[in-house]
Amino acid sequence: MDIRITDGKRVYAGIYESIYQALKNNAIYLVASCGGKGVCGKCRVKALEGKIRIESIGKLRKKDIDKRIVLACQTYPEEDIIIEIPEESKLVIGDKIAVSKSKELIEFLLSVEKGLSPAVRRVDLTLTPPTIQDNQSDLERLKKTLVDKGIHDMEFSHGFLAKMGDALRNADWKVSLAYTENFEAISLSPAEVRNRFGIAVDIGTTTVVLYLVDYSDGRLVDVGMTYNSQIRFGDDVITRIVYATEANGISDLRNAVINDINDMLLPIMEKHDIKREDIDSVVIAGNTTMLHLFWGLNPSSIREEPYIPTLNAFPSWRAGTAKIKINPQAPVYTLPCVASYVGGDIVAGVLASKMHMNSEVSLFMDIGTNGEIVIGNNEWLITAACSAGPCFEGSGIRHGMRATEGAVESVKINPSNFETEFGVIGKTQPTGICGSGMIDAISELFFSGVIDQKGKFAKDLKTDRIRIEDEGPEFILYRGEMKDIVLTEVDIENIIRAKAAIYAGVSLLLKEVGLELDIIKRVYIAGGFGNYLDIEKAVMIGMLPDLPHGKFSFIGNTSIAGAYLCLLSEKMRKEAEEISKKMTYIELSVSRGFMDEYLSALFLPHTNINLFPTVKNLYKKRS
Amino acid sequence: MDIRITDGKRVYAGIYESIYQALKNNAIYLVASCGGKGVCGKCRVKALEGKIRIESIGKLRKKDIDKRIVLACQTYPEEDIIIEIPEESKLVIGDKIAVSKSKELIEFLLSVEKGLSPAVRRVDLTLTPPTIQDNQSDLERLKKTLVDKGIHDMEFSHGFLAKMGDALRNADWKVSLAYTENFEAISLSPAEVRNRFGIAVDIGTTTVVLYLVDYSDGRLVDVGMTYNSQIRFGDDVITRIVYATEANGISDLRNAVINDINDMLLPIMEKHDIKREDIDSVVIAGNTTMLHLFWGLNPSSIREEPYIPTLNAFPSWRAGTAKIKINPQAPVYTLPCVASYVGGDIVAGVLASKMHMNSEVSLFMDIGTNGEIVIGNNEWLITAACSAGPCFEGSGIRHGMRATEGAVESVKINPSNFETEFGVIGKTQPTGICGSGMIDAISELFFSGVIDQKGKFAKDLKTDRIRIEDEGPEFILYRGEMKDIVLTEVDIENIIRAKAAIYAGVSLLLKEVGLELDIIKRVYIAGGFGNYLDIEKAVMIGMLPDLPHGKFSFIGNTSIAGAYLCLLSEKMRKEAEEISKKMTYIELSVSRGFMDEYLSALFLPHTNINLFPTVKNLYKKRS
Repeated sequence: MDIRITDGKRVYAGIYESIYQALKNNAIYLVASCGGKGVCGKCRVKALEGKIRIESIGKLRKKDIDKRIVLACQTYPEEDIIIEIPEESKLVIGDKIAVSKSKELIEFLLSVEKGLSPAVRRVDLTLTPPTIQDNQSDLERLKKTLVDKGIHDMEFSHGFLAKMGDALRNADWKVSLAYTENFEAISLSPAEVRNRFGIAVDIGTTTVVLYLVDYSDGRLVDVGMTYNSQIRFGDDVITRIVYATEANGISDLRNAVINDINDMLLPIMEKHDIKREDIDSVVIAGNTTMLHLFWGLNPSSIREEPYIPTLNAFPSWRAGTAKIKINPQAPVYTLPCVASYVGGDIVAGVLASKMHMNSEVSLFMDIGTNGEIVIGNNEWLITAACSAGPCFEGSGIRHGMRATEGAVESVKINPSNFETEFGVIGKTQPTGICGSGMIDAISELFFSGVIDQKGKFAKDLKTDRIRIEDEGPEFILYRGEMKDIVLTEVDIENIIRAKAAIYAGVSLLLKEVGLELDIIKRVYIAGGFGNYLDIEKAVMIGMLPDLPHGKFSFIGNTSIAGAYLCLLSEKMRKEAEEISKKMTYIELSVSRGFMDEYLSALFLPHTNINLFPTVKNLYKKRS
Repeated sequence: MDIRITDGKRVYAGIYESIYQALKNNAIYLVASCGGKGVCGKCRVKALEGKIRIESIGKLRKKDIDKRIVLACQTYPEEDIIIEIPEESKLVIGDKIAVSKSKELIEFLLSVEKGLSPAVRRVDLTLTPPTIQDNQSDLERLKKTLVDKGIHDMEFSHGFLAKMGDALRNADWKVSLAYTENFEAISLSPAEVRNRFGIAVDIGTTTVVLYLVDYSDGRLVDVGMTYNSQIRFGDDVITRIVYATEANGISDLRNAVINDINDMLLPIMEKHDIKREDIDSVVIAGNTTMLHLFWGLNPSSIREEPYIPTLNAFPSWRAGTAKIKINPQAPVYTLPCVASYVGGDIVAGVLASKMHMNSEVSLFMDIGTNGEIVIGNNEWLITAACSAGPCFEGSGIRHGMRATEGAVESVKINPSNFETEFGVIGKTQPTGICGSGMIDAISELFFSGVIDQKGKFAKDLKTDRIRIEDEGPEFILYRGEMKDIVLTEVDIENIIRAKAAIYAGVSLLLKEVGLELDIIKRVYIAGGFGNYLDIEKAVMIGMLPDLPHGKFSFIGNTSIAGAYLCLLSEKMRKEAEEISKKMTYIELSVSRGFMDEYLSALFLPHTNINLFPTVKNLYKKRS
């Protein structure tokens, strides 16, 4: 059967293939954080014409169904059909911001180093062809030629040698040898092949981001982004670690994320006409659990006291071992971790922030699925993880979404009639709410009196914006044609818990080093907020400490930025290792001090309003 | 269905399972050099009772069929049946000779070294269990404990680390670490586990031999022996290299021999109650092509001028890479090769012969499927391969077999009436003829005038022992109940070619170094002849040079003996490498001198009878 899309595309759907699957097979990706299991309810499409079979309607409501909305993963064409794909259902591959960011990073690298120094090097070799008199084996011949070039002690893997004989003969004994900085041979190509590629990958608990890089000049060739399919086994790291204890649990989780990476990579390679063998260097960043699962290591002990990972520093293994479908000999550099809950993503983040190079004390916050904090400078670094949960990335929030096109990123509420105004990413119809929008909304709901200090809806408020649904009361931010956008009381509770955990983490770390807030000269905010966050509002709800706004800066996804730096620079790989060794880790989960700080922070903005002088003033003024 | 065997055993045969397969599944192995394809005609059994379905009768003759003989691999029970397995069809697993030989080798090792030094070492470690305060990763903790023991710079593979966390916790942090001599971690076991095992394997073109060794004391635990299943793709190395160029050719060949090894190993492990993980060291010997195929390396260039192998010296890879079903981290030491046609089996042979330690010049001959020759002493070694073909191992000879029970190993023919007398291994009914029997037979046939100098049957000889069959004339050595044992004119031609190649090789090597025969103080004969060869007869047919008999000694399968030495001794592994580097290889296939020598040697005993003074005298006397 054919599926015609209103934008003019047409794809073929095999028998037993859902719309979701058929589109995916043709490189049209829909948002589906559950991996196409009918659970997340995000792969909505409009089935305009043609007979379909619906297996499940999942979370769809009657009014969705009336509008012919179906879940693509649960719907099967039974004849040629016509569908419309709403903007919010399209998975956005590529990232314009990344390209300008990458130029900035290369400039930085070239300012601290003479040139790029990727983990893979190359040398051109011309071997003397063998004869009956000169009958050395292929390997002896290659080694001799290397010694002539001053290269001794190269190591040769089974995978390399299995292809070597043919490679030498096919290239007529004139080859280019790629090898790692530890002098392990990777592959041979004909001497004239010049471009070589590497990939940097950030494995987030919620999303996976991939940079394809031409490492001859550092150019960012393309960007891929997808949800981490491990979501189908659990939203957060703890649920996934529990799942890992089941039979095949580790390999299920491992395969899920490996497939995500490979699925992203394939269309990008096709688009740029890059062969599998030509990608021969990898850098992987992620939190400690994600890195354990990526390598198929049992994460159980991460979850159980005393919270010990198998590894913090990962040896250089090969892409073949990692099952990434590029040159199987490619070395995979894994960003080193600090502890079970401060991983290689945070080390990458510190690296990208450059806070470890400055004498001034900085605060680094990565607010993603977890919420890690680092305080320090070029002499010391202290760090903790504060279990903020994934709500600012959209997970666990009814209409939550990442900061992509269609996301409500700012909210204003008129305190007299509770009417709302938005900023929407891409200036389109709003389709959900992202982290910065949630913070705005909570702040506005609080200051307009819709919710109280504990985040509960005010009783007897005269507005039809509050309605009671099966799952409890909710505030209608936007009345839409396809769907309304709401914040439920449960959503608000989740957001307050998350902000409390973050604030409590900062407080506790400062106490640990015996310093006051004003020692902090810069605050770097990394993670899901992308490029927009209203500092004032974030301070207002008590998520960020009450510091002058000029001290804050947003630095986006620093995990992928740090991975990108490591892909291109030996100096950066070494610095990442130094950072990981230098950081002092504080385990908050067993700290009574932390629990006290957390409970105090479960209010808007805080039990102790004196910690927030700016908010106190504003509150006074409005009252 | 059940198959009852006349010796009392009873095995179950599944539907679609041949008798051969059903027996194999129950660890009853039949001789089947074709791997059970109905081609070699060696897995004969008597189907005494019960309904059977015969797919093919292969090479069986009418009189075989009359005796209810079937090919086990082509015959399927259709109800419960009773069979008889003749002695010659049973594959003999185990080798009594090996045990006494192994004791002699251990004595030798202990005379040159302080103790055994296998490639795998062990260290007992007691780690301090982690706490919240002492939260190093498992790997850091292990490394620290190693440093306390004075061991720095251990390498950890992905496979090791994937199991490390569980291994440490299951053993309550008291472990025994096995590691290679290059300081690569292999595995952790609870500290109380003591016995560790290794395997030495000789991959011959025709047979594969395996020694299971307890490397704590060097004891030979068991021996396995089987035909190399690659035979189904060709009898000799050249045919197999040609097959390797086909799609999946390399992996077919590789899997065939790997399966042979694993199939041999499994019942032995079961018998001695040894776990897979407890076997963690491997040594592999074989000719250059066998070693390439074992590792899945393309052997094509071995066959084509200028005859270059991918490797002579193999890196230490792991059993997991080799696909041998033991501890996947076990290091696999591959005996180094010299050239395309002088492999690790010959290096092992020289090692076991100890000729490289003596100042006297020795001649080493390995007469197996090929026929390699080494001449030299502790200062120099020269070597060549002479394409003798596999006939002395039974291949290509109508009733050829290896030197196992039932083989005719010596023959006498009465020159007056042509009646025959035999020596049969195991003193049973004869079931075939082995290499030494063939040499005896040719010599006797020649001296009794049945064949001429070219190996052709004399015309008009008055005897019913010569008969003409479809495939030409043949001499009946033995009239049997199950089958006659004959030597055909084609068999004789093959044997003369083989002996000519061997003699020509020796002649040419001596010419190369400018020495005469009498420089040779010892002749070591290794290979398929086992423990018996009538030197006089072998000189008589011109296979061995005409030297005093006291100079000759039989040293059996030196390839497995050398592998066994390398499994137990670092000194021997180093000597093997030195031997391989020291040997000068002469390529006979492009040598005009060799072709002249070969053509001269295609007579019995030789065109130039003056080279064989003893034979000349004897011939004179008899005439």
